[in-house]
Amino acid sequence: MTENNKKGTYNPPLKGVVVLEFCQYLSGPSAGLRLADLGARVIKIENPNKGDLCRILPIKNQWVGGDSLLFHTINRNKESYTANLKSQEELDGIKNLIKKADVLIHNFRPGVMAKLGLGFDEVNKINPRLVFAEISGYGNSGPWAKKPGQDLLVQAMTGLMYASGDKDNAPTPFGLAIGDILCGLQMVQGIIAALIYRNRSGKGVKIELSLFESLLDFQFESLTTFFVSGKKPSRSAVNNAHPLLGAPYGIYECLEGHIAIAMVPIENLQETIACPGLDNYTQEMVFTHRDEIKALIADHLKSRKADYWLTLLREKGLWVMDLKDWKRMRAEEGYQKMQLEQDVNLDNGRTITTTRCPILIDKNRLLSSKSAPLLGKDTDRIKVEFKLKNLQS
Amino acid sequence: MTENNKKGTYNPPLKGVVVLEFCQYLSGPSAGLRLADLGARVIKIENPNKGDLCRILPIKNQWVGGDSLLFHTINRNKESYTANLKSQEELDGIKNLIKKADVLIHNFRPGVMAKLGLGFDEVNKINPRLVFAEISGYGNSGPWAKKPGQDLLVQAMTGLMYASGDKDNAPTPFGLAIGDILCGLQMVQGIIAALIYRNRSGKGVKIELSLFESLLDFQFESLTTFFVSGKKPSRSAVNNAHPLLGAPYGIYECLEGHIAIAMVPIENLQETIACPGLDNYTQEMVFTHRDEIKALIADHLKSRKADYWLTLLREKGLWVMDLKDWKRMRAEEGYQKMQLEQDVNLDNGRTITTTRCPILIDKNRLLSSKSAPLLGKDTDRIKVEFKLKNLQS
Repeated sequence: MTENNKKGTYNPPLKGVVVLEFCQYLSGPSAGLRLADLGARVIKIENPNKGDLCRILPIKNQWVGGDSLLFHTINRNKESYTANLKSQEELDGIKNLIKKADVLIHNFRPGVMAKLGLGFDEVNKINPRLVFAEISGYGNSGPWAKKPGQDLLVQAMTGLMYASGDKDNAPTPFGLAIGDILCGLQMVQGIIAALIYRNRSGKGVKIELSLFESLLDFQFESLTTFFVSGKKPSRSAVNNAHPLLGAPYGIYECLEGHIAIAMVPIENLQETIACPGLDNYTQEMVFTHRDEIKALIADHLKSRKADYWLTLLREKGLWVMDLKDWKRMRAEEGYQKMQLEQDVNLDNGRTITTTRCPILIDKNRLLSSKSAPLLGKDTDRIKVEFKLKNLQS
Repeated sequence: MTENNKKGTYNPPLKGVVVLEFCQYLSGPSAGLRLADLGARVIKIENPNKGDLCRILPIKNQWVGGDSLLFHTINRNKESYTANLKSQEELDGIKNLIKKADVLIHNFRPGVMAKLGLGFDEVNKINPRLVFAEISGYGNSGPWAKKPGQDLLVQAMTGLMYASGDKDNAPTPFGLAIGDILCGLQMVQGIIAALIYRNRSGKGVKIELSLFESLLDFQFESLTTFFVSGKKPSRSAVNNAHPLLGAPYGIYECLEGHIAIAMVPIENLQETIACPGLDNYTQEMVFTHRDEIKALIADHLKSRKADYWLTLLREKGLWVMDLKDWKRMRAEEGYQKMQLEQDVNLDNGRTITTTRCPILIDKNRLLSSKSAPLLGKDTDRIKVEFKLKNLQS
């Protein structure tokens, strides 16, 4: 805990909000994680056999106790309640829990919740104040509704693979689960906005979002240029970093190391690095002659080390940066001062280090050392606390 | 407008919330755009000379009227109020406006707002209920506070360039302004959560977020594996799509076209595509022999067209997808049914097509045909409406 958080006087914004998370893998659970960090109480509703399938999804074969490390990363600061939703008795218990909740999130395939009797219309009758949040791959109806809503597959559908990498490279995916993450972030926006509406009107609402729509929204700048011009932006053949931006924008290899160059006017760059041939080009040509200009600069920068160029360019106040990997990043004072890491205490006595919520509120870092729950850990306690009937375990 | 929105009966969640946006470029303005789409009234406070510098930032040299198309994309559905913040009289007008606002967002460099007399402490005295939201590159203090907070440069600082592209490729940036977008999304979360807190407690708060912290949060899964194991995930040498995932995850070139293959068990894949040599590998080897396995599959899939493989693999229910560019995507019925596009009416009579907000609320699409404002278009009207004194223009 940081000094600011030490005294426990901080009152998080979503304190008192109860969220039921019928979710697995990343998109829904990452939304639940953010809501938890903002102060909500998040209860995962899990199948008693295996639970959230992310528990058994290995990444790099890393495990913590019986669960995958990935699961622990996404599900810290939550509770776990197990119920077999195909048993009427246990389903009744869940409905009693829903009566007392503020938010329900699910990322089941379209139709699954309704089949269980837990679709929006049914649940709205049980609890008209509930915010019902639904994540899908491609929306809940229409010809794509049954396609598999998996991150890489959705990326493939959205044209996103023509933004990264150079022109002659194969289609290049974003190397993280960008669709899941964006959809989770946007769902949190929708849920909290819906809580404001609910607090004002007394009425719950249904929020829907799909991975596909999230990834389209992500490309809103590029898509608008395409809609308006009819032309697809093309990746630079040299050091592409953003298909819509002109030279010299990109990452350049040096004799040792790499440097990032952002929007630097060609004339200013030339005054500083004296690149042979670059004086034939002006600022007006940074789009029309983008790749030629970048090739000249790329060739020239290979003659000296990154540090040499960085010193020169920074003296002139130009927008450049050295590249850091995580080891170098973590060793820097600037990184350490941000206190981006936090420890989470596992049930088995072990501690793992993870990142914290990036949002600061009144200088408070939103920390939590509470680990991801063992499957069903909180079931009995929640049954007693919420007086869920007919559910002796 | 869709049928659902036609009758104008829909009451958006942030209706009545007044946001003052002291922002330029992308991170802050994209947060303002989402708040506007959720129903807030967003007033851009701009310098009377040039305004938001994004107005003159060309992308692909596309302009609409006197402003860049990019500006129009990010700033639709807002108003523009111009004030010279170095004039005491106009500053007093702004302070009067702040008294009546709910949210202030800025993305000036650290210290600039305080120097103008508009830092959190001062503004909180004027309006103790105000949510004050501050976006920076690397936080407001510490050794990195003065570094340029530009998307590509922040990417370079965070190790993000070692996630996309193949192992032997140069460090590969995400080919969109990922830091700006994520920071904008997260800031919206912080702002709306703070409004809930404010509505409950009567107290405004300060929300801080930096591009750097947003990009670290984005990498939370991978960073946690690094913190726990001390080992950096490495990109696959063959068709990398996510450094943490095993074979066959990636994009594969076929005799014609490409296919995306997500988490498909090796045995199931082998049963379907009969890849020579693949039967030497088992599911237990998808991490340890990732690149070998992927190389075999990549070689085999080149022998037939994408459609051939897709048909075979889909018959078995395996997670595969064809790659679409925007032209193909836009031609599909599944895309059209989602109604992801909306028209915006410009002051000059022209119409541009852009994307809509991806969040659906009670099946309502959050549409707005209101264009980005001309510089200072709403100044006089706002002065009258909010009774800002001593400010005859």
